[in-house]
Amino acid sequence: MNTTEPSSAPRSVGIVQTQYVELFTDDTTALHLDCGAALAPVRVAYETYGQLNADKSNAVLICHALSGNAHAAGRHSEEDRKSGWWDNYIGPGKPFDTDRLFIICSNNLGGCDGTTGPSSIHPETGRPFGLQFPMITIADMARLQKALIDHLGITQLLAVAGGSMGGMIALQWALDYPDALRSALIIASTPRLSAQNIAFNAVARQAIMVDPHFNGGDYYGEDVPRPVNGLALARMVAHITYLSEKGLHEKFGRKLQDRRELSFGFERDFAVESYLHYQGSSFVNRFDANTYLYITKAMDYFDPFPDPETAAKRIQQITARLLVISFDTDWRFDTSRSKELVKLLNWHQKTVTFEQFRSKHGHDAFLIDDPLYMETLSSFLKRLHQELRHPLARVPL
Amino acid sequence: MNTTEPSSAPRSVGIVQTQYVELFTDDTTALHLDCGAALAPVRVAYETYGQLNADKSNAVLICHALSGNAHAAGRHSEEDRKSGWWDNYIGPGKPFDTDRLFIICSNNLGGCDGTTGPSSIHPETGRPFGLQFPMITIADMARLQKALIDHLGITQLLAVAGGSMGGMIALQWALDYPDALRSALIIASTPRLSAQNIAFNAVARQAIMVDPHFNGGDYYGEDVPRPVNGLALARMVAHITYLSEKGLHEKFGRKLQDRRELSFGFERDFAVESYLHYQGSSFVNRFDANTYLYITKAMDYFDPFPDPETAAKRIQQITARLLVISFDTDWRFDTSRSKELVKLLNWHQKTVTFEQFRSKHGHDAFLIDDPLYMETLSSFLKRLHQELRHPLARVPL
Repeated sequence: MNTTEPSSAPRSVGIVQTQYVELFTDDTTALHLDCGAALAPVRVAYETYGQLNADKSNAVLICHALSGNAHAAGRHSEEDRKSGWWDNYIGPGKPFDTDRLFIICSNNLGGCDGTTGPSSIHPETGRPFGLQFPMITIADMARLQKALIDHLGITQLLAVAGGSMGGMIALQWALDYPDALRSALIIASTPRLSAQNIAFNAVARQAIMVDPHFNGGDYYGEDVPRPVNGLALARMVAHITYLSEKGLHEKFGRKLQDRRELSFGFERDFAVESYLHYQGSSFVNRFDANTYLYITKAMDYFDPFPDPETAAKRIQQITARLLVISFDTDWRFDTSRSKELVKLLNWHQKTVTFEQFRSKHGHDAFLIDDPLYMETLSSFLKRLHQELRHPLARVPL
Repeated sequence: MNTTEPSSAPRSVGIVQTQYVELFTDDTTALHLDCGAALAPVRVAYETYGQLNADKSNAVLICHALSGNAHAAGRHSEEDRKSGWWDNYIGPGKPFDTDRLFIICSNNLGGCDGTTGPSSIHPETGRPFGLQFPMITIADMARLQKALIDHLGITQLLAVAGGSMGGMIALQWALDYPDALRSALIIASTPRLSAQNIAFNAVARQAIMVDPHFNGGDYYGEDVPRPVNGLALARMVAHITYLSEKGLHEKFGRKLQDRRELSFGFERDFAVESYLHYQGSSFVNRFDANTYLYITKAMDYFDPFPDPETAAKRIQQITARLLVISFDTDWRFDTSRSKELVKLLNWHQKTVTFEQFRSKHGHDAFLIDDPLYMETLSSFLKRLHQELRHPLARVPL
């Protein structure tokens, strides 16, 4: 029996709108954080693509990475020149197929694109939180997403998927809300940051915090200068870790920028320098420095399996089927980190599959078109979707 | 016939003094630079260890890396708690055996430790050069060293040796002064920076140049604040690239610093953060930010073999015997870069040998004790030295 439907050519989800909801508005509830603090109310920015089916069983939550936002697919207007950050993967006929699935993507807690974060107004002071914002964790981010899913009336997600930090959030879902998801897709991610990862984050935060315009995180307001130099530097350092040595070599090598001879001055001689400066300076127009501090700290703290006993206890909770994916040139979260996770899951008899794909794009590969990677995502999600309609076909976990 | 002498236990060279010489003091001479400018006079700081023999044939020039200086071995006083930067490799009974060899190490052109550089006084203005200092290249550094060697009355060096950027300078010697050296030791180095290397240097320079105390490079003077935050950041980024992921993991992992619980604040939770901050803040006490700019730019520019024709023409000049060494966990200049150089040299029928050593120390491995690496250096230098005494034993190149 062939259950595969004839697939149409991939299309865009079209024009989309970001939606906003205030959660924890009831005086008796608040978002309780790992640090001990509580936030209320909490605003969430989110987008959805596709149609939620009658029994609300076809919903997939997409978790974004460090600098992403709720706008994962489509465009906000006809004039919009840029599509959402994972547009190539979300839409009719695409791996996250909106002809079948209802896709949700929300801006993470602590973000700067519509969800409550350090640039939001502190209800008690009437001024932006800045560093008064409480420290948040990956588990806190998942906790807020769970509240959003509850608000949407969805009991169980078909999948929670994410790349990089989004993969950490997906793993956190599998650990914390086993009844609320049927699968987790953990892509280009890691169960914990390495010393080197933490070191790079420390440099990024230092760059922001020594910027004279940082002002202890209090730099909001119309005529107030922001720590753009520090944030740009943070992005430049991070950006190097997103790309592979090979990818950088193929794209730039030692090509000069707009010149035929070395400048013998402190201009930007090489194309890779110009590219990196552009990445830094364009980032500051769309991102908040305090959010960068909070999110990198949340990543540093993420460590659900600090020792074998804790790992055993936590992994026992998992009922979701897991797909773990890595890319061979990713040196930020290299394949060994994914394998470490897969090994742990296998030891504890969980249903996990793993694939490593070839790419020249390093860590960024999870965002970039690749037919084999796309096919694996598609097949995994199709199978889950088919089981919805033919529950007898479901392989017992 | 066993020509090996009984070796004594390695010892220190003892108390040493930095010496200074002014070169290009004659009105008619100047140090002509690749950028077209000329410098005169030029002061050089240097140290020597061991005795120059009667025919001046036992001299070895040590070239330091980005942040090194002339003080390669011994201590400056009895109270001096730190020895020179390559003390474990230079001394009686050590690989650079001062019982046999006369070792010279000079601070590089553009440096900040006694040799003329951007912090030196501009003879025309009576004020420090700052960014008025001309752009310099690796070839210019070798050119100044050659003038020093001439000044010392040495016609031919037994060897020129260096790690990292020091290896670039050693290679430059082999290309530019074929008659003036019998061998070059090129360690943990590369014939050119990659796009990724250039990108890291661009971040480092940007960190310095956006520091509000940078002031266009004009920050000298007693009560003038220096761009210490920018320079510390530059060092922090660079330092990450000096260490291997594995070394960082073994040394720090996710160990917390002076605490048992996460701070849930912006303190330095992890030991690796504290370590990195320490590296940054201690560096600014001994290094000049402008020198950092000039030297990283010189490294960016280094590219003696931009195309096969130029490579063929230049490599033809080489008469020195070459030893190329890399370390398996060095990801700044990884083994493939050394192999690329060795392949080129072999294609052009040069006498080159190559070894890769295992180490957990990444790029820094060239500075750290390792018996096998030490033995290879020792043997290579002993053979050269023996040929001095038994010229008939010399294998024709």
